[in-house]
Amino acid sequence: MSSSPLSQKTGLIVSAHSADFVWRAAGAIALHVKQGFRMKVVCLSFGERGESAKLWRKGGMTESSVKAARREEAQVAADILGAEIEFFDLGDYPLRVPDEALFRLADVYRELQPSFVLSHSEQDPYNYDHPLAMRVAQEARIIAQAEGYEPGAGIIGAPHVLAFEPHQTEQCGWIPNTFLDITEVWDTKRQAIEAMAGQEHLWEYYTRVALQRGVQAKRNIGITAARNIKYAEAYMRLTPTVPENLA
Amino acid sequence: MSSSPLSQKTGLIVSAHSADFVWRAAGAIALHVKQGFRMKVVCLSFGERGESAKLWRKGGMTESSVKAARREEAQVAADILGAEIEFFDLGDYPLRVPDEALFRLADVYRELQPSFVLSHSEQDPYNYDHPLAMRVAQEARIIAQAEGYEPGAGIIGAPHVLAFEPHQTEQCGWIPNTFLDITEVWDTKRQAIEAMAGQEHLWEYYTRVALQRGVQAKRNIGITAARNIKYAEAYMRLTPTVPENLA
Amino acid sequence: MSSSPLSQKTGLIVSAHSADFVWRAAGAIALHVKQGFRMKVVCLSFGERGESAKLWRKGGMTESSVKAARREEAQVAADILGAEIEFFDLGDYPLRVPDEALFRLADVYRELQPSFVLSHSEQDPYNYDHPLAMRVAQEARIIAQAEGYEPGAGIIGAPHVLAFEPHQTEQCGWIPNTFLDITEVWDTKRQAIEAMAGQEHLWEYYTRVALQRGVQAKRNIGITAARNIKYAEAYMRLTPTVPENLA
Amino acid sequence: MSSSPLSQKTGLIVSAHSADFVWRAAGAIALHVKQGFRMKVVCLSFGERGESAKLWRKGGMTESSVKAARREEAQVAADILGAEIEFFDLGDYPLRVPDEALFRLADVYRELQPSFVLSHSEQDPYNYDHPLAMRVAQEARIIAQAEGYEPGAGIIGAPHVLAFEPHQTEQCGWIPNTFLDITEVWDTKRQAIEAMAGQEHLWEYYTRVALQRGVQAKRNIGITAARNIKYAEAYMRLTPTVPENLA
Amino acid sequence: MSSSPLSQKTGLIVSAHSADFVWRAAGAIALHVKQGFRMKVVCLSFGERGESAKLWRKGGMTESSVKAARREEAQVAADILGAEIEFFDLGDYPLRVPDEALFRLADVYRELQPSFVLSHSEQDPYNYDHPLAMRVAQEARIIAQAEGYEPGAGIIGAPHVLAFEPHQTEQCGWIPNTFLDITEVWDTKRQAIEAMAGQEHLWEYYTRVALQRGVQAKRNIGITAARNIKYAEAYMRLTPTVPENLA
Amino acid sequence: MSSSPLSQKTGLIVSAHSADFVWRAAGAIALHVKQGFRMKVVCLSFGERGESAKLWRKGGMTESSVKAARREEAQVAADILGAEIEFFDLGDYPLRVPDEALFRLADVYRELQPSFVLSHSEQDPYNYDHPLAMRVAQEARIIAQAEGYEPGAGIIGAPHVLAFEPHQTEQCGWIPNTFLDITEVWDTKRQAIEAMAGQEHLWEYYTRVALQRGVQAKRNIGITAARNIKYAEAYMRLTPTVPENLA
Repeated sequence: MSSSPLSQKTGLIVSAHSADFVWRAAGAIALHVKQGFRMKVVCLSFGERGESAKLWRKGGMTESSVKAARREEAQVAADILGAEIEFFDLGDYPLRVPDEALFRLADVYRELQPSFVLSHSEQDPYNYDHPLAMRVAQEARIIAQAEGYEPGAGIIGAPHVLAFEPHQTEQCGWIPNTFLDITEVWDTKRQAIEAMAGQEHLWEYYTRVALQRGVQAKRNIGITAARNIKYAEAYMRLTPTVPENLA
Repeated sequence: MSSSPLSQKTGLIVSAHSADFVWRAAGAIALHVKQGFRMKVVCLSFGERGESAKLWRKGGMTESSVKAARREEAQVAADILGAEIEFFDLGDYPLRVPDEALFRLADVYRELQPSFVLSHSEQDPYNYDHPLAMRVAQEARIIAQAEGYEPGAGIIGAPHVLAFEPHQTEQCGWIPNTFLDITEVWDTKRQAIEAMAGQEHLWEYYTRVALQRGVQAKRNIGITAARNIKYAEAYMRLTPTVPENLA
Repeated sequence: MSSSPLSQKTGLIVSAHSADFVWRAAGAIALHVKQGFRMKVVCLSFGERGESAKLWRKGGMTESSVKAARREEAQVAADILGAEIEFFDLGDYPLRVPDEALFRLADVYRELQPSFVLSHSEQDPYNYDHPLAMRVAQEARIIAQAEGYEPGAGIIGAPHVLAFEPHQTEQCGWIPNTFLDITEVWDTKRQAIEAMAGQEHLWEYYTRVALQRGVQAKRNIGITAARNIKYAEAYMRLTPTVPENLA
Repeated sequence: MSSSPLSQKTGLIVSAHSADFVWRAAGAIALHVKQGFRMKVVCLSFGERGESAKLWRKGGMTESSVKAARREEAQVAADILGAEIEFFDLGDYPLRVPDEALFRLADVYRELQPSFVLSHSEQDPYNYDHPLAMRVAQEARIIAQAEGYEPGAGIIGAPHVLAFEPHQTEQCGWIPNTFLDITEVWDTKRQAIEAMAGQEHLWEYYTRVALQRGVQAKRNIGITAARNIKYAEAYMRLTPTVPENLA
Repeated sequence: MSSSPLSQKTGLIVSAHSADFVWRAAGAIALHVKQGFRMKVVCLSFGERGESAKLWRKGGMTESSVKAARREEAQVAADILGAEIEFFDLGDYPLRVPDEALFRLADVYRELQPSFVLSHSEQDPYNYDHPLAMRVAQEARIIAQAEGYEPGAGIIGAPHVLAFEPHQTEQCGWIPNTFLDITEVWDTKRQAIEAMAGQEHLWEYYTRVALQRGVQAKRNIGITAARNIKYAEAYMRLTPTVPENLA
Repeated sequence: MSSSPLSQKTGLIVSAHSADFVWRAAGAIALHVKQGFRMKVVCLSFGERGESAKLWRKGGMTESSVKAARREEAQVAADILGAEIEFFDLGDYPLRVPDEALFRLADVYRELQPSFVLSHSEQDPYNYDHPLAMRVAQEARIIAQAEGYEPGAGIIGAPHVLAFEPHQTEQCGWIPNTFLDITEVWDTKRQAIEAMAGQEHLWEYYTRVALQRGVQAKRNIGITAARNIKYAEAYMRLTPTVPENLA
């Protein structure tokens, strides 16, 4: 893992299962890579139990072969997007995060010094692994800020925290306050989506999500802008901003 | 009222009483003026009944003389800040807003084409005029966006809506998600504050507010910034943003 | 209406319909009267349309005769409880409160100088008159505090505001944070309840409410107390307190 | 207006503007008509100012001609769906509902005796007419239940209240708890949608909404069902149910 | 444990302590049994520490003898209601649920294939074991849905999740949206209640709860129904429904 | 640890890190001590990692020497305030609380029999140790109430639970409903604050907090009071009260 030059901005994505970052944040990843950011994905698990139904139904699979197939798909998607990816392999349904994994993630923060971190919604009654991933993303961020955690290693500042879009948004207390225009990188996102062979039933679903969010982004773009947005991703920003002005 | 050149950005403040914009948004006004914005304040009332206790206690005052004194103070403050100011004189405690006043405000939106509008918190159990001002600010904004309202006159886009800080924030469901560094214009804000001769007991209170928000702004400024913030104003942004990236 | 001596504490109840104060606050009224308080009830309407089904079904009734019957019942109940009562006769289903009624209520505050005011829950999807009564109770309180409203007449301080129990508590966002032990005045409350001849179906309902709240009050009474509570009323206090200590 | 036979179930839709019922509830209308319900739509306004941008841009239009065009479109859609429709023509942006209109709607309830009423979400920061329509729908329902409102005319029971889907759901505090499978009437809904010539930009948008809700409905259908749902509408039920069992 | 025939519907109750299911859901159990459902109760603990005060005060008791007495009472109640019961004996005050217990519960879901599951409210500041039981009920449900958990064993669909009534409802964020008429099985419920010899002080309390909920159920039953409800249980349904229509 | 006489009231403070009780509750501690209460502080950790930045930056420090310095400061502050203090030394960033520590805290409750317990806000996105401390404070309180936990040792009643002020109140869902006038003990609190040599940057910050809360306390003090409040502490009371009356 090469260290990024001081001048390079970076971003971190904490994904509960190995495909979550594709459906929910691939546009942001591709867009920031295009803008020169170093982007890194941490997959806490492969989603081998709970999000690999199609693989299991093929028959003849073991947990180990399902994990390998999921890892391969995620690596291909990360390559398409231009992102680094790291797998923690903590298991899913249920995901459990021991303190050593928490510290490993804190160390990723320290090495990466991200401007922002993307993870799941803080609530999700359909999926308990997702909110746990966000919680861990936030707890590791706090630890990485602490002067007394591995003293001497440089602490981090206050990376912005944003929650990407869950499957059933309204059930999750997730309210988008930030829309990202991903029109110019849509083809790349779609290509990464199609790398998820095991969940083909979701391809069109998330294409429609991007179109709906595109329409909504246009309605919220403010008074002076005139961007031609077709596809967007929506985020719930959880941390305050300190902008140059309010326009 | 001169029309602003197309290239000039503008901002609108809707103030329930004639002093509210000073305590709560004078820093934003001065900062945007410094950045070249045309800034305009609309005072729905003079606060003659409910926020002029010191004047009434002087004796010999009538509603008319209290209003004149309040108007004078607000005009001086606006001049200090470099903002335009317009008085709707709708009365206070209780403020009542007939539809013609709503349309008058919609016309201000149409003429000004603001990038953003600042008003009160949406709830305030200590003050019913404040949430009404915000409601009117939002309703007029929606009307000004409607093609069929005064068809032919140009509609507006979607100015951002932000709620400035109420007196007892936690009672008002007001959660700041945006901090504005006003250190460089603090002296101007303090000068405007001191123009509010009738409410001298609030001068130190709002100076302390600015210092506390300054400390909090620094804690939220993100990973790469190193601004030396001493004074800040806090806002609750109510409308989604569509930024260039998430950093 | 006689003015209360300076040393006498007072309390105000704002009741949307003429029977509401009985079911929901008769215990508090009787208890405070017993403790020496002057207690006053304002009924905004008689509940002639929406809460007098039994009277209407008797046949031969007009709005006027229903109102007279309701007024009589409420007066009897107030007499039993030892409270003053005043009827604003604003109509119900829907209750509408013009500004002159609001000012009349503000004048009641000024005259009474109550330590606390009791009214309905702030939300009630089953009844729109109830939340309006609470809103009016709060708005009149704010106006009565304003130096410039009828300047010269003495302003009031900050009476505590509490919401008494609505019919379907959980649907109303009503969360009791204050239990009042009414065991010693229960017989008086039951007598006032039985004066409500037109709503006999509610007698046992509100007796059971008092028993349930009694059980809950005992569970919340704190560590050093050993009161023998059988009947209680529950309230949602909306305004902060400034107690001598936290015990 | 012919009275429905006692045995016929009925449903009411309260639409702020004349096209809202199409995008948001046309599937429910067509489905219930197919099941033998008498369905009735009340349009409080034509949406002539705020939802007729395309018409205004054609040029040469007056408020009166826009209203006529909108009325025609809504009537065609209602005919396609098999519903009755009634226009209150109260104006939009802003919609204002005087008490006589409220009573007119209460009378519709009394005549129709609906099992359920559909209207807008209770909050919508993008549109103040929508929540007002829902509020009026609920207030009229309560008045129609009151024995003393037009005594002698039969009161209604407690029709279920459901909020149909707003445009930006998460901003509106709208959480769907009820999915309706509209696959079998989708073609009819799409036909009604296409009758809305003035808002063609929304056709595909609401087709995608129906597809997304279809996927979600399948995920929530419970353990024993195996319906093949493709299109669905989502609703937020606001009133409790009293089912035969919990399965 | 005999497997239920394919055509038999089933329901699951997850009870933190061994008596909870009686006070809160005995009516639902008896009613569904009467309708032909197979009903099963899982008690995570016996409530030996926190809900057996009367037993401990008898003197001469050990944790083991208290547990035996509690088990006996619960078994008797289950027999009266016609339900199966299984004890996990995980301890209480505090209840702790290791992953093996979570998987054991997931296996119960797989075997039972319930249409619905009943457990505690998601919050309860008076009792931390109760929300944990609900959390475990939901997490086990999700695991039992995962294709990759014990692959080969049949997954479950999406059983409805409902929270039964906590002791102090308003403190628990518990809002009833579903009332179940238990009048026809009330005698059975009361008999099961009386089997709880150790908590006799709660018999009348929960009888009054059933009467109050009965009154409320009648107010919510909708327009065409005319059921004679005297006793009811209230539930907060947490999962969306997909009904045949909205009536 | 000496037992308090039966007649002496007591209070407990549960502090996540060793300095938290000073900034947030030192006024309450000093005031209750002055009123004759026995006051006890439990520090779950020393805050050695996350709240000792200044110490770490001095260089040459180890975790052990930082803890010793923090312990010394906290002991000095407790002595100034007249409180007992006990250190659990559980570590911070992240704080982890094993069941034996929970039981140790339950035993403190049993020994102390406090009238009230003060701890952190229930949420804090900037600090995960703080909400955990409050959770543990509440869970231990419930265990100490259970007859079957260490049967024979006397159970406790229901001490009031209050959350003291977090750093960024609005982000924490913390709403003050109780203001405590600490003017008469302010000098003592300031002295305790100055004992926190390692966090000098917070001295003025929390002095300003006390002044702001003082202004707000005066606005909420009710109608008959005339206290001259300059400094106050604010609390969010989480448990219902059972007062003698509502004045």
